Amino acid sequence: MYNQTKAWVLEAGQRLRESMDTDPRIEYKTSVRDLVTEKDREIESFFVSRIRHAYPDHDILGEEGIHEKGLNDPQQGWVWIIDPIDGTTNFVHQKQNFCISVALYEKGEPRLGFIYDPMAGELFHAIAGQGAFLNDQRLAPLTETKVEEAVIGINSLWLTPNKHFDFKPLQALVRDVRGTRSVGAAALEMAYVACGRLDAYLTLRLSPWDFAAGLAIVREVGAVTSTVHNQPVQVFEKSSVLVARPGLHQAIIDRYLHSPSARR
Amino acid sequence: MYNQTKAWVLEAGQRLRESMDTDPRIEYKTSVRDLVTEKDREIESFFVSRIRHAYPDHDILGEEGIHEKGLNDPQQGWVWIIDPIDGTTNFVHQKQNFCISVALYEKGEPRLGFIYDPMAGELFHAIAGQGAFLNDQRLAPLTETKVEEAVIGINSLWLTPNKHFDFKPLQALVRDVRGTRSVGAAALEMAYVACGRLDAYLTLRLSPWDFAAGLAIVREVGAVTSTVHNQPVQVFEKSSVLVARPGLHQAIIDRYLHSPSARR
Repeated sequence: MYNQTKAWVLEAGQRLRESMDTDPRIEYKTSVRDLVTEKDREIESFFVSRIRHAYPDHDILGEEGIHEKGLNDPQQGWVWIIDPIDGTTNFVHQKQNFCISVALYEKGEPRLGFIYDPMAGELFHAIAGQGAFLNDQRLAPLTETKVEEAVIGINSLWLTPNKHFDFKPLQALVRDVRGTRSVGAAALEMAYVACGRLDAYLTLRLSPWDFAAGLAIVREVGAVTSTVHNQPVQVFEKSSVLVARPGLHQAIIDRYLHSPSARR
Repeated sequence: MYNQTKAWVLEAGQRLRESMDTDPRIEYKTSVRDLVTEKDREIESFFVSRIRHAYPDHDILGEEGIHEKGLNDPQQGWVWIIDPIDGTTNFVHQKQNFCISVALYEKGEPRLGFIYDPMAGELFHAIAGQGAFLNDQRLAPLTETKVEEAVIGINSLWLTPNKHFDFKPLQALVRDVRGTRSVGAAALEMAYVACGRLDAYLTLRLSPWDFAAGLAIVREVGAVTSTVHNQPVQVFEKSSVLVARPGLHQAIIDRYLHSPSARR
């Protein structure tokens, strides 16, 4: 299953890469929304048709909807969770920094995770219990780091008033860390935590297809993952996500997210 | 001068790229500060020795200091402004997303600008009055865009209380745009405005070596540049910088930065 899925992901990435070169509409911002929707659907259909043929009894959960009569209890059986293009704004505005995210869960537990940035040629992938890889290179287990030495991924949007979480403790976190970055593609940012480019990634609202593959990959290198309220992330529900190196995760929870002003 | 400088920039980039592969200290975060300082000095010395030999009457302004008895009036004569590694934190933490920034000014006006990302193999460059290029590709003049369709570069740090500018109007800007990104290397982010990956870049405090080459490049594609107070950027002084597509620049100034709460 791993090799077959990997081949699908690489082929889907090649399709997206080629559309960058050949589709003239990518130059016209006016038709951007249509273009993204079309590409999203095309890549999702690509996966759905292959998965249905190979694994007719599996369920599929994707941004474009559930591709079955009704998803069976996702905590039972096999469920594929797919984001055909994570980082659609980057896809259009930057022609880079987007990815394909594909995960396979069995009874609620991750089995496979793939995050593929076709423009950079970077495939992050993991089989549960067998480690995580960037292309052919095995990723090292994450070591601990301090808040003051950490570079964290966080979108400026979460530093503004919002309904999910008080922004003031996040301002304190941003002031204390060595630096913040924002790529604009959640799955890629989780992959960057796995390979050490970011020491943590924090976001207040994601959907399963944004983080399902990332969860499968980061746990293989010992990253700690939770919601911003330090609860386990429920993979089949919308959720906030804090993923970080060991030690750093606890420090962010203790010093910032559980601070009195963060309780709402 | 353009061809010679380009050759220097490419050679310096190759040195940085090779040090990524060969210097074992890059793996040890404890020696990170020393490593960056050493590489910064090495690359700056590389440029200083070549410039002094080729142009003994030119002045040089760099992060490591002024390399003359005392800079002559920079508004007269020729001044090179160099940042050997812009994005030092990325250099260490990510091994990518850093650049070499080299500019040449005559009587306070930009003549040449080079921003080179050696890991991505992207050289942004411009000769005053002759357009800007990404590698061999001429960059198109920037078209107008609306705030609501803009992707802007801004560091989360400026969304926290700071002595440079009230963060509340910046929160409003961040909420209104389509998205925000942060690369963590000012020169690269200015280059990304030049090539359209970002529609604007806003920062509250930079030094001349951070923005001198960027200014030379973005003006060739029609980007509008000012301080956040809508004053001209003085290239030989520390400054805030707002660089944006035409139209968008004025809208950000009018709707956010000149709003009453932004006056201090």
